[in-house]
Formats: sequence, structure tokens, C-alpha cells
Amino acid sequence: MEYKKIEEPLLYDGSQIQPFWAFKEFKVKGSSILAWHGPMEIEAEKIIDYEDIGLEIKSSEMVHFIIEHFDIQPADIRTCYHRQRLFVTIVKDVLGELGIGTNREGDDLYFEGNKLSVSIATCSNSSMKIHFGMNITNKGTPIDVDTIGLLECKKDLDNSQINELTNKISQNYINEIESIEEDITKTKVF
Amino acid sequence: MEYKKIEEPLLYDGSQIQPFWAFKEFKVKGSSILAWHGPMEIEAEKIIDYEDIGLEIKSSEMVHFIIEHFDIQPADIRTCYHRQRLFVTIVKDVLGELGIGTNREGDDLYFEGNKLSVSIATCSNSSMKIHFGMNITNKGTPIDVDTIGLLECKKDLDNSQINELTNKISQNYINEIESIEEDITKTKVF
Amino acid sequence: MEYKKIEEPLLYDGSQIQPFWAFKEFKVKGSSILAWHGPMEIEAEKIIDYEDIGLEIKSSEMVHFIIEHFDIQPADIRTCYHRQRLFVTIVKDVLGELGIGTNREGDDLYFEGNKLSVSIATCSNSSMKIHFGMNITNKGTPIDVDTIGLLECKKDLDNSQINELTNKISQNYINEIESIEEDITKTKVF
Amino acid sequence: MEYKKIEEPLLYDGSQIQPFWAFKEFKVKGSSILAWHGPMEIEAEKIIDYEDIGLEIKSSEMVHFIIEHFDIQPADIRTCYHRQRLFVTIVKDVLGELGIGTNREGDDLYFEGNKLSVSIATCSNSSMKIHFGMNITNKGTPIDVDTIGLLECKKDLDNSQINELTNKISQNYINEIESIEEDITKTKVF
Amino acid sequence: MEYKKIEEPLLYDGSQIQPFWAFKEFKVKGSSILAWHGPMEIEAEKIIDYEDIGLEIKSSEMVHFIIEHFDIQPADIRTCYHRQRLFVTIVKDVLGELGIGTNREGDDLYFEGNKLSVSIATCSNSSMKIHFGMNITNKGTPIDVDTIGLLECKKDLDNSQINELTNKISQNYINEIESIEEDITKTKVF
Amino acid sequence: MEYKKIEEPLLYDGSQIQPFWAFKEFKVKGSSILAWHGPMEIEAEKIIDYEDIGLEIKSSEMVHFIIEHFDIQPADIRTCYHRQRLFVTIVKDVLGELGIGTNREGDDLYFEGNKLSVSIATCSNSSMKIHFGMNITNKGTPIDVDTIGLLECKKDLDNSQINELTNKISQNYINEIESIEEDITKTKVF
Repeated sequence: MEYKKIEEPLLYDGSQIQPFWAFKEFKVKGSSILAWHGPMEIEAEKIIDYEDIGLEIKSSEMVHFIIEHFDIQPADIRTCYHRQRLFVTIVKDVLGELGIGTNREGDDLYFEGNKLSVSIATCSNSSMKIHFGMNITNKGTPIDVDTIGLLECKKDLDNSQINELTNKISQNYINEIESIEEDITKTKVF
Repeated sequence: MEYKKIEEPLLYDGSQIQPFWAFKEFKVKGSSILAWHGPMEIEAEKIIDYEDIGLEIKSSEMVHFIIEHFDIQPADIRTCYHRQRLFVTIVKDVLGELGIGTNREGDDLYFEGNKLSVSIATCSNSSMKIHFGMNITNKGTPIDVDTIGLLECKKDLDNSQINELTNKISQNYINEIESIEEDITKTKVF
Repeated sequence: MEYKKIEEPLLYDGSQIQPFWAFKEFKVKGSSILAWHGPMEIEAEKIIDYEDIGLEIKSSEMVHFIIEHFDIQPADIRTCYHRQRLFVTIVKDVLGELGIGTNREGDDLYFEGNKLSVSIATCSNSSMKIHFGMNITNKGTPIDVDTIGLLECKKDLDNSQINELTNKISQNYINEIESIEEDITKTKVF
Repeated sequence: MEYKKIEEPLLYDGSQIQPFWAFKEFKVKGSSILAWHGPMEIEAEKIIDYEDIGLEIKSSEMVHFIIEHFDIQPADIRTCYHRQRLFVTIVKDVLGELGIGTNREGDDLYFEGNKLSVSIATCSNSSMKIHFGMNITNKGTPIDVDTIGLLECKKDLDNSQINELTNKISQNYINEIESIEEDITKTKVF
Repeated sequence: MEYKKIEEPLLYDGSQIQPFWAFKEFKVKGSSILAWHGPMEIEAEKIIDYEDIGLEIKSSEMVHFIIEHFDIQPADIRTCYHRQRLFVTIVKDVLGELGIGTNREGDDLYFEGNKLSVSIATCSNSSMKIHFGMNITNKGTPIDVDTIGLLECKKDLDNSQINELTNKISQNYINEIESIEEDITKTKVF
Repeated sequence: MEYKKIEEPLLYDGSQIQPFWAFKEFKVKGSSILAWHGPMEIEAEKIIDYEDIGLEIKSSEMVHFIIEHFDIQPADIRTCYHRQRLFVTIVKDVLGELGIGTNREGDDLYFEGNKLSVSIATCSNSSMKIHFGMNITNKGTPIDVDTIGLLECKKDLDNSQINELTNKISQNYINEIESIEEDITKTKVF
């Protein structure tokens, strides 16, 4: 599983959740996690959460992660949501190490009751996709939701720390999936 | 998914990881999580982790959880290890709320470098099983491993708090699995 | 699994067989069976049975059932057709209790050689869908097929009986699926 | 799928539910349905229904069916129980054509409140197995259960009719499975 | 699994790789292999190999095979690529019997370093599809690739031999898949 | 996927086909291919091919390959037999490059009508296993079968060439499986 940090800013508009985006845009082939910093504004017709239809999903500055898995064929959304949950717990732990204590509810992280992140998981027949976006600031977020950004959680957080946590989250997730695969190979089944 | 707290003490000897144990011993039918307090001493021929063969796996007083899932047919060990990881992160979070800060490595929890827990996941063709045991004290644990128990992590922890955390962990896990199922039913796939 | 009877009349035009219709139209989330009375006229481009392409599929008054299952991931059409067959046998049995003796051939019910019903099953990656429509009268059915409606099978059938059988069929199907799940949890596998 | 009628009497003792029995005993290779007339007395250690443990499961004269499917890999018990239910509805229909009206509850057939049949489904990783046994008379059945046999349901039933219904049930089941496979190949998926 | 040789010439334009093509065009229902001789020119928007986007994929005269499998539900691309590889090895062996020695690299056949064939595998939720095309001559192939056709490999190859090898490849593939199914039914699993 | 050549001679007695053998005997964890030279004599109770029961399966000197795959969960015997067939075609091709032209029938290789090899595939819920053994000489093979060994096929074959072909077959198989995985990640599905 390959990790690629995209250095240039990139708008998350919902097209990135589509299968094969990493390959089509960045020639990243196979299972991968791509991360970058940039705004979010999801186009109405690209919303894949039926409960979000009609809502604004936006933020001016976020850390974005796009994960794609090809290891399980056919891909299924149940496994993908399990992996999404694991991903979110990893984010929570990495933030915790920085002194940012959050609460997780399903796939959402909250800091003192304010929403810090958005996430979705989906799949096609051949790959599983996860998006996780975390506000760097709460600028540009919907006014009818109590939101917060990393910089409001911890004022002295600097850019290199945000880069570092982006890398660490990605690497920890890759390690997690690998450690699961390893555990399979040492366990008797009935 | 049913949660049952077993009130009488019970030795975890490795037989509880076998499929249908909850039904055969307690008439608990269907997907379930059973929890109890008691010692652990796994019989050599019941060890299912091939890396543990020849090792002592024991403790005088633990909180034990045995989970069985029948929802996915055929059952597979990969999904089971994903759920095990989610379970461990839930334990970590509940402990954190009590002020017990732990680190997770795969399916192990550590407190200041000392091993607090053991865990395994397995399956048969028709059910997935998870065992998670957490030391209440470090009495009776193998001498060649740095171990710790909840009472060494937090001296003023009382019995009712241990009962409460046992219940809370179980309930949170049930909620987690349900929330995953719910997310499936609201997400467009490609 | 939720059962919802839709009280207002609704044209079955083939769009209802699409995944997530119950959620998008009625906010019914999760596995469900929706039933209503209304006409059928399937739009050409919504026909999903390749053998029906070019045929008229219509009727002026039918009992319609739309079933969606999210329990199996990824969804597969084979399981869905097994469930469709079970559904049709349940319809047959409920009609039989009313004194309407029918023959089943695959997913079709016949009364004295006349076609009483239409049915199709399909799936996306994340849900299985079944439509079953049964003529209340044979009005508006294609002239080149020998069709019949419930009211021609049994002249004294009144509206409340049709409502009752609609509810009973739906409930029996839900019970059937639940009883299968229960049987899984009591059976040794090899 | 091959149908074989075994002409010599054979005791159903529970060993026949094991995978590959048809091949090991009768060189019948591949998916098959074997049927014969004979008594039943299941050995305690061969009971695979955990709810039946400790019960007597016996009858002096039954029609037995043993089905094995190799088409789905890995085999799963959920699909197997779906097929079992379909099988039982087929038995019910064939009996109905002979004027023997029965009620089905899950995988049991009842005639006027008396239990006519027993059934179980199971699987290994590579095959699905179904047993269905139907009393020819109620002789030798457990005294604590209200049972009945075909000859008590319909006094003038003769041997050739029992043979005929045995064959017809088997053939109809084979046709059913084939018709499901055929329907798969004509249906658009989403 | 049905084999059909299409006698009239037919352009392979990429639409044939779509599910249900055999049924929609030729009323061939179920798993099948269709073969014909004809040119290839894949329309840009029908290219399904993301690495081929922007490339010309064409040839004036080829032997084409289109395979569709409905036996595995849900269909998955991994199994499909396994079958594609088996198909290509069968082509290689049949050519070898004619004295045309080729090398296989993945799904490509080469004769003395020149590309003889193209191939792709894909699937929908309900069927697996394989296309394999082999140049009869190298006319009309892209100028930037070293290609070759059967007639350049073996100058005295006549039309009836090409027909024969087309039939033989198809039949051997059908036999191969059947022999795998048969082996399943004779092997103990753990 | 790891390749390990075992240098010391080792009797193939049928125990090596059991899951986790590579880990239990050689601490090789994960998907692997192990190869060695040695005799074969399968113990009666370790025969897993029901058609071979009662037969002698033996040879004094063979090249053995044991493959285990953990990538697909749950493991299934159908995929395993597909991979076995691919493995055998790879052996055939490597032998062909050495000038040893063989015919393949299913999973058997023949040289001028004489049987050169034996093979079986099987699985547990969590891993797929393949054994392939190829006679180095025909010594010690059953007298009622026309067998042959590599040294009878090609008299001047020396030990280093046999070692080389053992390594090459193993490496080519690993490459094949990897190339299939790669092809998955570049192909559009429907």
C-alpha cells in the first residue's frame, strides 16, 4: 500500500471518492492513501451520502485523505466502513498524542462538542474508497453546524506539525492494515 | 447483538474461543458479547495463536470478553480481525475516559510500556470469534513479560467502576457495529 | 427489517426497483419491504429483464411489493433470486389459505393457467432488490397473455381482505428471513 | 445436478449429512440429491442441531433426501438454509397436489398440527448439505411429540405413489435451482 | 457453457466486452464463449484498461474470443483474471501444437518478441467478461508496437486451420473450467 | 509472497498439504511457496483426493512445491484450483524452455503419454494450499501407472539445472500472481 502526499493544494469536490481517481490523476496504481491540504466544496451531484443530499458540505482548509483498497475482490462496503472506523480511531490517537483530545461518534471526530471532520466510505465492484477530511480552521464551514479546526483546538500548532500528523496518520493506517494481514497468517481457524 | 454479563467467576482456558460456546454454555443464541471477571490459564492444546505455542498465557484476575458474530456468511478471519481492532480501540477510549491513557499496538494495549491485555480473533465457516482479556491486576502473569493490571494503572479504581467499564465497552462495541450497518444503508456505491 | 404499507396509490413504472428507492422516497432506511396498491406500466428503458425488452408490462390494479436487503455485502443476484422464490411461495401459501389455489412456475403464479403475477430480482453492489406485483383485476394487462386478477380468482374478495393478505405476506416474509438467520446460529458446520 | 434414488433401505443415522457422503458411499460426484426410504435414528454425537442435543430423533419409516451442492465456493450455511426452505416448499406443493394439505413453519411441515418431517442444513468450506426426512408412518417417532406420517395423512396412499412423490420432489428441486441460475443470466444489475 | 462461432465478420469496437452482449446480440444465454474473425478498432470511450487510454488499439484481421461467466455470484475481477490467464495458456498450447512457439507475459502472447495478441478481463456484479484477440496478420496494427500475425508466424497456415484452432481453443477452455469444477467435488478440505 | 528452497531432503507424506505447515515447520509466515527435492509416500489417512483412496501415491525422487495463499478470505477451493492450473502451465512452460515438451491434462503433466507429475489443491477457511510433485526419475513410482521422470525425459539434465528450474518455476508463479493483482488495479469494471 502506497502513501503519497500531494504537495499542491487541491479542492475536494467529491470527484476524488470515485474509483481509480488516484491512478487517473496521479498514476498511483494499486492500494493507496493520498493526502493533501486544501478546501472542500462537494458538488451536489457528487454527494454519495443520501442523508447529506441538499446540505452544504464545505470548508476552506482541510487535511484530506483518500484511501483506495484493491485487496478484497469483490470489494464490499461493509469491510470498507470497518476500515474507515479504524482510520478514524487512528486519527484520534495521533491527535491525542499532540494533546488534542477528541471524541469519536461513528466516523465523526468532535472537539468539545464541535465537529472537526467529515468522512464517507464507498466502493465499486473492484475497489473500496474512503474519504476523511479534517478542518484545519473552521473557516468556510456551514454556519448551521458547530465546527472547529485543528488551529482552534490547539493554537500553537504549526504547519510542519500538521504535515507530520498527516504523514503519521497515513503511515499508522498502512501499518494497521498490514498487521491485520499478518495476524491472519498466525491464527488457527476452526 | 446481545450482551450478557456473567456474574460468577469463570476461568478462561481457551475453550471459550470455540464457536457456539455462548450457546452451549449459556443458551445465548445469535451474535453476542459475553463478559466476566476471572483468571486465565490457556491449555496448551487450546492455543490458537501459532506464535504463542509453548508460551504461558495466564493471569490471576482479568476482565474477559468473548464476542461471536453470525452476520457474515461464510465467516472470515479478515473481517474478524478488523472488528477485533475496533474493539480494542473502544477499550482504549473507555479507559481514556477514566484517565487511564494506554497505547495500542495492533491488538495489544500497553500502559507505560507494560502489557495490559491479550487478544485473539478466529472463525469457523459460520461464526467469527474474538477474545479480549485485560488484567485487573498483574498477579499471576508470566514473569518474563512486563505486565500491568487496571489496579496498578489507577489505584483508586473500585469494583463498581470495573463493572461499569465492562458494560460500557460492550455496549459501545454493539453500537459501533450497528452504526456501521446503518452507514451502509445510506451510501451510494459505484 | 421494516415493513411499510404505502396507503396512497402509486404507479409502478420500474423506477422502484432501483437501489435506495425506499430511502429516497420514503426515508425508510435499512432492509425493508414496502407494499401498496396501484397500476403498473414499466417504462421501456427501465426494463431490467432482457427477455422482456420490447414487451408491454402493465396492469391497471395490482398489489405491489418492493423488497430491499442490505444484510449481505456485497449483494449478489443469486441469493436475491433465492429470496424471491421464497417470497413467491409465501404469497402462494397465503393465497391458498384464502382458498385461492395457484401454481408456481419459477417466480410466476398461475391460477387455472392464467398469469396472476410478475416478478423480478436484481442487485447493486450493496443491496438486493425484489419486485413482486399481483393483479387485483386483469384490467389493463397485455392482451396477448392469459392473465387473471385476484378478483377474478375469488369474486367475493373484498378490499380489507386484500389489505390483510398484503400485510400477512409481508410479515410472513420477514419472519421467514429471520427464522433462517436463527437456524444459522444453532447449527454445527463441518 | 444428479438425482439418484437408492432402492435398498438405509438407516439415516446422521452420518449422511457429512460432506462427500454421496461420493464416498455411492460414487455420486458433484451436486446431487439422493433419496431413499428407511428408518431414522440419529446417533447422539452426530446431532448437528445444538437445540436437539439430548433429544431422540427417530422414526421407523421415512422418505429421506440428502442434497449436496458444490456450485458456490466457499459454501455458506445462509445460502444453504435458503435452499432448504425452497426444498420444503416444494415438498409442500407436491403433497398438496396429492390432496395432503400441510402447513410449513420454517423447515417443518405439519398436518393438522402434527409434525410430519425433520430437516437440517449445514455446510463445510466446499459443500452445502441438506437433509429432509418425512415420516411414512408415525411408528417409532418420539412419544413426546405429536407426529404423523404420510399414511396417516392419506390412508389410500400406496407405495408407487410414495415413490412417485419422492421422484417428483427431487426433480422439481433440481428444476428450481436451474431456473434460478437461468434468471441470473437475463437480468440487468445496477 | 456454450460455444458459438459467429460466421459473419464483426468489428471488435469494445462494446462486446460489456455484460450481456452475447445475449443482447445473439440470444446466447448463460455462460458462453463466442468467437469470430474480424478487425478491431476500440472506440476511445470504450477502452476499459486505464493504461491504454489515449492509445490506438486496432488490427485489420483478428481471431476474437468473448467469454462471459455467470457461475460465480457476485462476479469478481480477480477470478476473472485468473481465468483469462488460463485462457491465454490454452491459446499458447494450441498454437504450440501447430508449431507456433510463443512466449506468454501475463496476458500477452509474443512470437519472437513481436506482440501477437491483446486481452482484457472485467466484470459487473453478475458476470465476468474476457476478451482475447489474436492478429491473423499484422495489418492495421499500431505502428509504434512490434506486432505479428498468425500468418507471419506460420506462412502456410490456411483458413480451415485458423477455424480449427479457434474451435479447439474454445473447447479446451470449456473443458478446463469443467475439469476444475470436477476436481472440487473430489477433494477433502480442512 | 515468499519463496523458500529447502535444501535438505524431505519426504512428502501428505502432512505438508495441511494449512500452516510452512509456518509450523519453517517459520515461514504469510503466503509462500516452498520447494525441495525428496521422495513421496502419502500415508493412507492423509490422502485428500477421494478418488485416490486405496491407491499408492509414491515416488523415490521428486521436485516438490507447496504453495500457501492467505490473500483471499475466506479461502475457497475454486480459486485454489484455478491457481493450481496456472502453476502447472508455468511448469510446462519452464520445461518447454529446457526442451522437455509435455502435455497437460487438467493438473497432470505427461511426457509422451507417461505421467510426470501429481498435484492436489485444497483449502481451509483461512488458506489455500497446493502441492505439485514432479518425478526426477520414475523410480519408486506405482507399477500400474506409466510414469516418467525428468531424467528419463532429458538424459543430460544435471542437478544444477533441476535446481534452476525449481527456482524459476517458483519465481514465475509469484510473478504471475503479482501480475494478476496489478491488472486488477488498472481495469474499469461495470
